[in-house]
Amino acid sequence: MKINFSKCHSVLITGASRGLGLQMVRQLLYSPNRPPKIIATARNPAAAQELQELAKSHSNVHVLKLHSEHSVDAAVQSVDSIVGTNGLNCLINNAAINMTSELDTVTRDAMMKTYESNTVAPLFVTKAFLPLLRRAAAEGSDMGIQRAAVINVSSVLGSVQLNWGEGASYKSYAYRASKSALNMVTRCLAMDLEAEKILCVALHPGWVRTDMGGPTAPLSPEESISSVLSVISGLTEKHHGGYVDYTGKSLPW
Amino acid sequence: MKINFSKCHSVLITGASRGLGLQMVRQLLYSPNRPPKIIATARNPAAAQELQELAKSHSNVHVLKLHSEHSVDAAVQSVDSIVGTNGLNCLINNAAINMTSELDTVTRDAMMKTYESNTVAPLFVTKAFLPLLRRAAAEGSDMGIQRAAVINVSSVLGSVQLNWGEGASYKSYAYRASKSALNMVTRCLAMDLEAEKILCVALHPGWVRTDMGGPTAPLSPEESISSVLSVISGLTEKHHGGYVDYTGKSLPW
Repeated sequence: MKINFSKCHSVLITGASRGLGLQMVRQLLYSPNRPPKIIATARNPAAAQELQELAKSHSNVHVLKLHSEHSVDAAVQSVDSIVGTNGLNCLINNAAINMTSELDTVTRDAMMKTYESNTVAPLFVTKAFLPLLRRAAAEGSDMGIQRAAVINVSSVLGSVQLNWGEGASYKSYAYRASKSALNMVTRCLAMDLEAEKILCVALHPGWVRTDMGGPTAPLSPEESISSVLSVISGLTEKHHGGYVDYTGKSLPW
Repeated sequence: MKINFSKCHSVLITGASRGLGLQMVRQLLYSPNRPPKIIATARNPAAAQELQELAKSHSNVHVLKLHSEHSVDAAVQSVDSIVGTNGLNCLINNAAINMTSELDTVTRDAMMKTYESNTVAPLFVTKAFLPLLRRAAAEGSDMGIQRAAVINVSSVLGSVQLNWGEGASYKSYAYRASKSALNMVTRCLAMDLEAEKILCVALHPGWVRTDMGGPTAPLSPEESISSVLSVISGLTEKHHGGYVDYTGKSLPW
């Protein structure tokens, strides 16, 4: 498999100011089969220096403010004018937070804030962009990023089944619960959007050396995202409603 | 299997003012092998008329106010004095809410409130009662309600895997996501409390004719709860960290 977004007119990536989101923008941009339009959103784009520099030197990168509670409508309007009649082909809900939350340290606030960012925001961002995804999906062809797709960046840490034995060594009530719930939201969206041929998947990008993943993670951002973008390139209807990792392997819920 | 709580000194049931919680109190009370101490909590016990009447006529029923954010410490103190040196053997996190939340109607507020009640509250109620559960667990014997157990009343609607095809006919983003997250919380608790021999399970009580389940549900509260209490009676270490329904069958996450 390789990265191929040549039939995908537009990609929107949330949380693109750093980490995996920024890496996605970078690798899409330097791919020979890049999408014509890369829309990168951040809560505070003014502070996203690297992203701003990429946008300055590449006219196909569009940086927008997106804070799920406050600036969604404005972002949808801007994206509408960027994508035009093609609609939005690929929405990657990548923005997420993590907060220390072991049994002794977890707080209500950590549980609620993490859920809001990692579960509720992706749902409402998806709802907001549905008119543009539907516009893209209306024109026939097979399911996939050439038509319309919602990629929810989840985590293997959201797998309830794998949270056992060695798989349970990473402790975080807030993060794990939010990602299990995101998996459920993804599956609900998949059922609700199937008839309109909007593909929905939950994707685990691997454990990566980012600010969130920490310095001991086995994968570099480059390694993770080249795999992730290849997997996204190859999504078909058989992945719809599924939970896959960066190698394309299915994960148990 | 039959209902047998004779070796379980104390049971605490949240959300006992009506529905399945009230039914649990009733059926435990009238079981020949009832636990010596039944602690029934409600957000507003003054309004829980049936529960108050049961408590008036049965000295082994104790009604307490428990609102997870406000009155936990007071409730823990009261339960401490009720259970004494035996500690608390069985905590049943039954309280839950549901709110209409299909794709078109779901609100942030519905998502957040349902998560708070159905996921965060059971976690913090469990944390609050841990000293009493630990006291009960400290005295040897096999895992189960005769030692110490946390029963999280979940739902088959929290199964991501079963939310597909016919299994997806009931739509509720808020409820489904909260129950998937509760399953994850249960599994996290199971891992964290295993060494202390506190059994943790997620339990689906069936679809029941309560205010929440509606009039067309296939099970009466009596049918559901006699099965549920039998299943709880028979829990052993092999169920630890599991997800079972009211017949004792394992569910996929």
